[in-house]
Amino acid sequence: MIEPYDDAYFMKKALQEAEAAYAKDEIPIGAVIVSNNQIIARAHNLTETLNDVTAHAEMQAITAAANFLGGKYLKKCTLYVTIEPCQMCAGALFWSQISTIVYGARDEQRGCISLNTKLHPKTVLKGGVLKEEASNLLKQFFIEKRNLN
Amino acid sequence: MIEPYDDAYFMKKALQEAEAAYAKDEIPIGAVIVSNNQIIARAHNLTETLNDVTAHAEMQAITAAANFLGGKYLKKCTLYVTIEPCQMCAGALFWSQISTIVYGARDEQRGCISLNTKLHPKTVLKGGVLKEEASNLLKQFFIEKRNLN
Repeated sequence: MIEPYDDAYFMKKALQEAEAAYAKDEIPIGAVIVSNNQIIARAHNLTETLNDVTAHAEMQAITAAANFLGGKYLKKCTLYVTIEPCQMCAGALFWSQISTIVYGARDEQRGCISLNTKLHPKTVLKGGVLKEEASNLLKQFFIEKRNLN
Repeated sequence: MIEPYDDAYFMKKALQEAEAAYAKDEIPIGAVIVSNNQIIARAHNLTETLNDVTAHAEMQAITAAANFLGGKYLKKCTLYVTIEPCQMCAGALFWSQISTIVYGARDEQRGCISLNTKLHPKTVLKGGVLKEEASNLLKQFFIEKRNLN
């Protein structure tokens, strides 16, 4: 059977969100949440626009997905996020009991893996999907920022 | 000089927020954020009401305080929260670069101390202020819940 809805397919959607963040001069990180092969939430980093450190892509996606589902648990959902979640987002994902987290590139410094953030025992964490694209977008953003200053 | 605005004074305000949560059938945790002895944000847990795992008292208080200040960093602020913050909230507080966190009672299971959540190097964490009151309110809530079920 042909399966068009693979991890790369949904990560591309998350990358589109990251590009939308870039266009707003936000650190380019994007996320989507998928349930039954349907995207139920899309979000990108808005910390500058909203003046709010909690406005990471994942946080907004969690809120939007729960709103769509009419319940606060995301037990049968998968989050696709272009960069490995931070402690805050991984902590929120813990509470959501999400089924799967798929990230693109690692965040060695501030990501949940290096910082040992506890995930829900039922949550599976996978990484490396379209990591070059995710990481290049981030690098390009910071190079551009440096050149402007 | 008489100083009425000590830690117990502000923790009482956070406890009033926890009581407001209790009255809404929410796990009773409350928070306030203080800048220059002025309360700039008040919030209580609303995870059930909003169907949103991210709606912890601290998260809402961080957003509200940043909104009040017109900037996303809380460098000269103190958060008072009735129960030790979880990984998500401590992770958000990391990003906020908040000056001081004062909690009431410990959360041995899911609090940021046991789970080793990284705080900002400039953040001071203090605990135990009105801890009996905070912990009793929580216990009373869960006893009542158990008796109703």
